[in-house]
Amino acid sequence: MKSIQKAGVVGGGVIGAAWAARFAENGIDTVVFDPAPDAQRKLDEVVALADRAYAKLTLAPRAKKGAITLTTDLAEAVKDADFIQEAAPERLELKQDLFAEIEGHARADVIIASSTSGFKPTDLQAKMVHPERLIVGHPFNPVYLLPLVEIIAGEKKSDDVTASAKAFYASIGMHPLLIRKEIDAFVADRLMEALWREALWLVKDDIATAEEIDDAIRFGCGLRWAQMGTFQVFNVAGGEAGMRHFMAQFGPALKWPWTKLMDTPEMDDALIEKIAVQCEEQSEGLSIRDLERIRDNNLIAIMQALKTQKWGAGQTLLDYEAQLYKRSHSGSSETVHDFSQLIRMHETVVQPDWTDYNNHMNEARYLQVFCDSTDAFLNMIGVDPDYVAGGHSYYTVETHIQHLQEVAALEPLYVKTQMISHDEKRIHLFQWIYHGKTDEVLATGEQMFLHVDANASKACPAKPEVLARLGEIWDGHQHLPAPEAAGRAVGQRRS
Amino acid sequence: MKSIQKAGVVGGGVIGAAWAARFAENGIDTVVFDPAPDAQRKLDEVVALADRAYAKLTLAPRAKKGAITLTTDLAEAVKDADFIQEAAPERLELKQDLFAEIEGHARADVIIASSTSGFKPTDLQAKMVHPERLIVGHPFNPVYLLPLVEIIAGEKKSDDVTASAKAFYASIGMHPLLIRKEIDAFVADRLMEALWREALWLVKDDIATAEEIDDAIRFGCGLRWAQMGTFQVFNVAGGEAGMRHFMAQFGPALKWPWTKLMDTPEMDDALIEKIAVQCEEQSEGLSIRDLERIRDNNLIAIMQALKTQKWGAGQTLLDYEAQLYKRSHSGSSETVHDFSQLIRMHETVVQPDWTDYNNHMNEARYLQVFCDSTDAFLNMIGVDPDYVAGGHSYYTVETHIQHLQEVAALEPLYVKTQMISHDEKRIHLFQWIYHGKTDEVLATGEQMFLHVDANASKACPAKPEVLARLGEIWDGHQHLPAPEAAGRAVGQRRS
Repeated sequence: MKSIQKAGVVGGGVIGAAWAARFAENGIDTVVFDPAPDAQRKLDEVVALADRAYAKLTLAPRAKKGAITLTTDLAEAVKDADFIQEAAPERLELKQDLFAEIEGHARADVIIASSTSGFKPTDLQAKMVHPERLIVGHPFNPVYLLPLVEIIAGEKKSDDVTASAKAFYASIGMHPLLIRKEIDAFVADRLMEALWREALWLVKDDIATAEEIDDAIRFGCGLRWAQMGTFQVFNVAGGEAGMRHFMAQFGPALKWPWTKLMDTPEMDDALIEKIAVQCEEQSEGLSIRDLERIRDNNLIAIMQALKTQKWGAGQTLLDYEAQLYKRSHSGSSETVHDFSQLIRMHETVVQPDWTDYNNHMNEARYLQVFCDSTDAFLNMIGVDPDYVAGGHSYYTVETHIQHLQEVAALEPLYVKTQMISHDEKRIHLFQWIYHGKTDEVLATGEQMFLHVDANASKACPAKPEVLARLGEIWDGHQHLPAPEAAGRAVGQRRS
Repeated sequence: MKSIQKAGVVGGGVIGAAWAARFAENGIDTVVFDPAPDAQRKLDEVVALADRAYAKLTLAPRAKKGAITLTTDLAEAVKDADFIQEAAPERLELKQDLFAEIEGHARADVIIASSTSGFKPTDLQAKMVHPERLIVGHPFNPVYLLPLVEIIAGEKKSDDVTASAKAFYASIGMHPLLIRKEIDAFVADRLMEALWREALWLVKDDIATAEEIDDAIRFGCGLRWAQMGTFQVFNVAGGEAGMRHFMAQFGPALKWPWTKLMDTPEMDDALIEKIAVQCEEQSEGLSIRDLERIRDNNLIAIMQALKTQKWGAGQTLLDYEAQLYKRSHSGSSETVHDFSQLIRMHETVVQPDWTDYNNHMNEARYLQVFCDSTDAFLNMIGVDPDYVAGGHSYYTVETHIQHLQEVAALEPLYVKTQMISHDEKRIHLFQWIYHGKTDEVLATGEQMFLHVDANASKACPAKPEVLARLGEIWDGHQHLPAPEAAGRAVGQRRS
């Protein structure tokens, strides 16, 4: 796959703006075409939501953000693009004409992906000269967070195009799902539509309100569907005999009148109003913007939770972070540290789930920041994952912290590190946590680390290359003044 | 509501056994009726799964577990019960006969709840003398973890019965949802059935495999449905104009052929086999038991994540934990501490998400255990949530930790605390973390706390009642020997 440096997005609504945010987050300069008079405001609002979300989503080093530019000139948006994503209104003829026009301006080798949630790519290709370059790349709201993107090729297709699109979407943190056959509405939307239609009947027939139906989802099956789809859920529910048992037991219910399957409710004004009012009641005064932020916080928390389980969308996030670390490493491998100064390596942001009831960082998280900084230090001296996999590591044996200042959620932090002493088995470090905006010292941490043979669970000398690296640092750091609080015991009077 | 001390469960399959586990977890002695020869084994397996899940779910003090007894005598299971939950096979006549027989043995005032996923309570009541005591209480697998339970009353009904059932289910950590009208399959299963039917078509027509359909759910809409139902999701997706805009835009699609709504697939052997094989492929060698544990870990992680957001199933968990803390407080309010000894208060279990890649407790979590123990200490001396809400608190200003031993996930811990000194503004504590099984010391922590006026952000003397309580402790603790490591600085040689 050619590297995607520049992208064009056609349409700047909720979907198009979120694509732009996802592209820019991954370092891709993006030009958005939208002729609407309030396009800039709407674009800015979605980009701000996305930026807020990414700051919480990962501690991995984020790419230098790409630029997002808005234009009312279609040619401007697509002429330099390495990838084009369309997110215009859902009208077939409008899209067909757009694709023909885009082709006139874009480079011949560039993939054009449609965000349509319903039209078949074969129909979208109708007026194109090189139809095989068009695919559907169907995302899900909020596009900057949800990993799923359905890829569908038309009758005119190219394996290169689908493979490249798949690789590109995966490189920006998504889970691309290649759909085997063209069908209206593809897979995910058909499932949602079936459920939605049944939900509408339940409201119309006063079996339940919109809120009650939503509760029936989010307190039950929704918790399962965030991690396993309907087949896997039923497979597990079948107990020891799995899916065959489940289908034998519940298969007959398909023929029972358990859904309004044979009919579809009339979406007249009365039903629309009923639903809209019930949705407003459910929101309890929260605005759509409030709900968007709540939704994003929940999505991030769920994806981070699944990350601890290395499962589903959490695995996608892990894979994405691995890419980010790799990219940042390859960029920084030539970093030359100046060991005549304190070492500044670790930077982070106070995560929302690190805070107490009062929104300040919990005291235990100060130690975590010191640990993470120590990890960066150890990586630098060659105690990297390979070294650890070889059965050797440094263990923390002692810690002294001075908690000096509080710090609130989402504030930036950085750490500076000084080596106090070292020998064959031990490293003695002193570190400071600074506020990233005010440069105020928030805490100091003094720690002793012992080199161990992890299998034997006993101390042993570090390998020569690690000791050599420590020596390089010591050449500089031995000339630094000793930190005022080093060697201090709890409660000791300041001198 | 009368207090539920004893429960009867009729049917010991996946659902019944999980009800028993949930009841016993909440201190309710439970007798399970099941005549099957392998009932004990199946019951034990589900109870073990549930016990494993509860150990991870919450740090709140769990109730003393109720006893679970299996019987092949229906009368035995229900005669002393304060609440009866039926979970027998889904055959209407069998259930009708069961309820008539249960009535003959149970106390007249006891609620009988059916776990049926489809039958209307009016039909289930057909052969009963006191039909109004029967409701449907429809749970979701795994019943010991998922909060949702649908409550449906029949034509013969009592508001007292539904209110009592609702209160009871809420008291055992569930989210009861009262369904307004009787309808086959109620609400949640109708929604699942609609989606399931569409999913079956997609497999039959080779649009996607079972795994691909599952991925279309869990990487997309499933992540939304774990926190907001379909109406709220669409409401938010509508952007600034909300639901009305959404329905205007996507309402017409209901009339398009976006689902196979007019038909239902024949569940012949070929389709069943196709799905079963695809499910096996998706599982990649994981057994159903493996998948159950993975599912539970994911559910716990998702619910804990939502707890940090105070939302949905996370709020249910918060409410449940508040009850657990309250119950444990009311039980221990008369606890008399012996201050001539070290204080032993805080106990916990190493949470799975506290661990490093090597499954050992992360070093920062040692400090968290010390913090949690300090919280218990502060609560004991009167620095409780009310005191803190009044604008005063103790802040940690200094910490010294000796990390002595590793400890793995799910191992039990307890902490002992010694007061080293105190004055009007300061408390100086020394604490030890012990392994709950081996009584080995895993870490020591020495900390200084400063009493502050949180609004003014400055130190000030604690209130007299707090100082009096500290004095009581000091009367005893001043006679204890000083801990060996107290006053120690990092790297200081042991004497």
